[in-house]
Amino acid sequence: MSMNSLPDIQSDFAQWYQEVIHQAELVDQSPVRGSMVIRPYGYAIWEHIRDILNKRIKETGHKNAAFPLLIPESFLKKEAEHVEGFAPELAVVTYAGGKKLEDPLVIRPTSETLVHAMFARWISSWRDLPLKINQWANVVRWEMRPRAFLRTTEFFWQEGHTAHEAYEEALNEAHLMMQEYVNLATNKLAIPVITGKKTESEKFPGAEMTLTFEAIMQDGKALQMGTSHLLSQGFARAFNMAFQDREGKQEYPHLTSWGVTTRLVGAVVMVHGDQKGLVIPPQIAPIQVIIVPIFKKGNDSSKILEKAREIEKSLQNSGLRVEVDSDEHKTPGAKFYKWELRGVPIRIELGPRDIEKQQAVVVTRLTNAKETVSFGELSQKLPAQLEAIQQDMLDRATKRLQAQWHKAAQLADFGPTLMKEGGIYQTGWCQSPACEQELKKYKAFTRCLLDEKTFETCFACDKPSVTDVLVAKAY
Amino acid sequence: MSMNSLPDIQSDFAQWYQEVIHQAELVDQSPVRGSMVIRPYGYAIWEHIRDILNKRIKETGHKNAAFPLLIPESFLKKEAEHVEGFAPELAVVTYAGGKKLEDPLVIRPTSETLVHAMFARWISSWRDLPLKINQWANVVRWEMRPRAFLRTTEFFWQEGHTAHEAYEEALNEAHLMMQEYVNLATNKLAIPVITGKKTESEKFPGAEMTLTFEAIMQDGKALQMGTSHLLSQGFARAFNMAFQDREGKQEYPHLTSWGVTTRLVGAVVMVHGDQKGLVIPPQIAPIQVIIVPIFKKGNDSSKILEKAREIEKSLQNSGLRVEVDSDEHKTPGAKFYKWELRGVPIRIELGPRDIEKQQAVVVTRLTNAKETVSFGELSQKLPAQLEAIQQDMLDRATKRLQAQWHKAAQLADFGPTLMKEGGIYQTGWCQSPACEQELKKYKAFTRCLLDEKTFETCFACDKPSVTDVLVAKAY
Repeated sequence: MSMNSLPDIQSDFAQWYQEVIHQAELVDQSPVRGSMVIRPYGYAIWEHIRDILNKRIKETGHKNAAFPLLIPESFLKKEAEHVEGFAPELAVVTYAGGKKLEDPLVIRPTSETLVHAMFARWISSWRDLPLKINQWANVVRWEMRPRAFLRTTEFFWQEGHTAHEAYEEALNEAHLMMQEYVNLATNKLAIPVITGKKTESEKFPGAEMTLTFEAIMQDGKALQMGTSHLLSQGFARAFNMAFQDREGKQEYPHLTSWGVTTRLVGAVVMVHGDQKGLVIPPQIAPIQVIIVPIFKKGNDSSKILEKAREIEKSLQNSGLRVEVDSDEHKTPGAKFYKWELRGVPIRIELGPRDIEKQQAVVVTRLTNAKETVSFGELSQKLPAQLEAIQQDMLDRATKRLQAQWHKAAQLADFGPTLMKEGGIYQTGWCQSPACEQELKKYKAFTRCLLDEKTFETCFACDKPSVTDVLVAKAY
Repeated sequence: MSMNSLPDIQSDFAQWYQEVIHQAELVDQSPVRGSMVIRPYGYAIWEHIRDILNKRIKETGHKNAAFPLLIPESFLKKEAEHVEGFAPELAVVTYAGGKKLEDPLVIRPTSETLVHAMFARWISSWRDLPLKINQWANVVRWEMRPRAFLRTTEFFWQEGHTAHEAYEEALNEAHLMMQEYVNLATNKLAIPVITGKKTESEKFPGAEMTLTFEAIMQDGKALQMGTSHLLSQGFARAFNMAFQDREGKQEYPHLTSWGVTTRLVGAVVMVHGDQKGLVIPPQIAPIQVIIVPIFKKGNDSSKILEKAREIEKSLQNSGLRVEVDSDEHKTPGAKFYKWELRGVPIRIELGPRDIEKQQAVVVTRLTNAKETVSFGELSQKLPAQLEAIQQDMLDRATKRLQAQWHKAAQLADFGPTLMKEGGIYQTGWCQSPACEQELKKYKAFTRCLLDEKTFETCFACDKPSVTDVLVAKAY
């Protein structure tokens, strides 16, 4: 077991992260630089996140579709800011079917250009609006410093694309989907988040406004969890997306796009993990309850296994995701270790003595609390306990966020501490890019603009602050 | 309406297909040659097929994972037959991140090579076996003559990959998953299929054996619906996938792979469609029941709409997928046309007189049969009616298959008719590639070998037949 022990989460968070995702079998390195293999346990977490969000995307009136992986290079060039933003990250197909291509194709880094070319075919009248499409897809952005889940050359995401008659309606859509993301993070991932607008320099290439939701990891760095964009009408014009409005005039629709990625799995690891490994929120845990039968020499192990299966069945009937670890080649200790590493919320231990007493030992991964529960009570008690764990995880993460959230006026004062210890700093800003650049001295970036205004002047110059801004180191 | 009428399904099946999938909004052409855009209605059909099969893949003990889109070109070369088979179809990334790549990457045409490289890392002992993985993914095979759903440069599929200790176990797996595919086709797609082994020339590059399931389209051409492969140990050797067996010896695992694609959507169109458009089997229909309120001038349309919503709700509570077409800008006739084109199994017509009489007119898409059903009976009657439609569709397709299935001894005799009229011909074959080549004169191919032997000699030469073989024209 010592072979598998994890690096110290306090002093070596980056290494802890790399190790825990490998040891818990979320991912493996692939032979392709920058691309990861998502193993079944990691993929099952993503499937739960995806299914929950997919349901909400449909319930809010969007329909799934599929657009091509390959996009003509010329398409990206139609929106000037857009191509400039993505050009350095493109993977380009120059040969196909044994021949050199006359028009090279890029692997989509995002699909606005192709989706908009199709929108232009589908939208001719106000009656065709709103058009609300989503796709679950893989995208490729060439990554120089890959890190599993957080920054990979290929990643998985959903990308929503909508078109609306009116500016206000598009703005509402961008906010609505951001609210869906916040609900997902808060209620399912147990991750408290902060939302706001991205600054000019940080927004999506070609967007008029980018909303972001940001979370803070245990090492004090911020992680952009996802974004929702109100696009400029530049896209609609670039793709000739005119439609006849209610008055018979030619108009351009107002567009949005919004997405979250497999990065969310990385966020769950970095917000909730501990020295023993992952801690997965019950709502998205592939296994919510693991039953470990404790076989003892001289005892009838089949009787224990039979009871374990019986409990598994009854908990499954209560709607829980349950497994029995019946491996005969591992000791109970090795099994405890394995499932703690994998962050299963609840472990049930079941030995010969327990069978006699018609009870089991229930261990909570988050707190390591142990409790003896009679067989008859398990199906009643465990669903409630999983809910309590989910809430407890959110509460702990919220407390941590609050503790890491500082207000400070002058970068010169808080910069050194920020650089050393991380944390989020709320401060004033004149909104000049020059002052934003100053943050780089401390390896920090703006995360988002806030609606509040608690500081009179900018963190870096003497000019008045426009609104507060959050700054932090970031992934 | 005449603008949208479809080409004659009897005399111009190919054009009928192209038109019906566009008019029914399953797909649209994309600006990328060979790639299609799958629109929401088409994607919803695929989602139903995928969800049904995904559930079975999990229930049979496989786990989903995700492997990279990009594969080093050198990997494909490790299995000689494999690279030879796929080389002409590869799309190659030669530039990425602004630089020329030293090792070009290919977009996966299938994932055996990469999956096996990972299997080699994960398998070291017999205790790691069986290893049963599946992925839902997009793949790219450069297509010279693209046809939506049937042959596209990019397509969607699931690819299962498994490793086993024993040859027999792998063989069983290949057959087991073929049986799952047959069940899917028969019970969900209402498509009767024929299974058998592919000939040497038609099997998967690098496979020891390829099982196929084949269906016949309304124009008499066969369509390969999907395949399941027992791979040669060449793959396991090429990727150093040795493991320690129960006796402590180094052994190579026995591998399988199997997949079905978005082509299945095309099969549903081509097997069940008619002159009015699609006919979707209820099991996979995105909308099973469409309610068309019939507004008449001078009547209170809100009352009709209210009742339509009430019926929608009650049918949804019975587990059906129901929608109300409340569009005020379309006539009832235009709506009937639209939903017939889209192949919704049941239409409910609801006018003012129906409301008075507390009844609705129920129209079956497949047969155009009309029936008056009282409101109180709808929730009882419609689920049963959908089941009956599903069965009726399978029965009709089965009869058609039987009618198109001929037995004939000599290619010279049946070849001309086959070439002109299509159909499947069961005949004898000496299993020489030279005789197989003779089929091309009549634009026909072997589809699969049968276990039966009803012919003494080969269809093309005087040598004895080994087993019967099916030959047909094919997509």
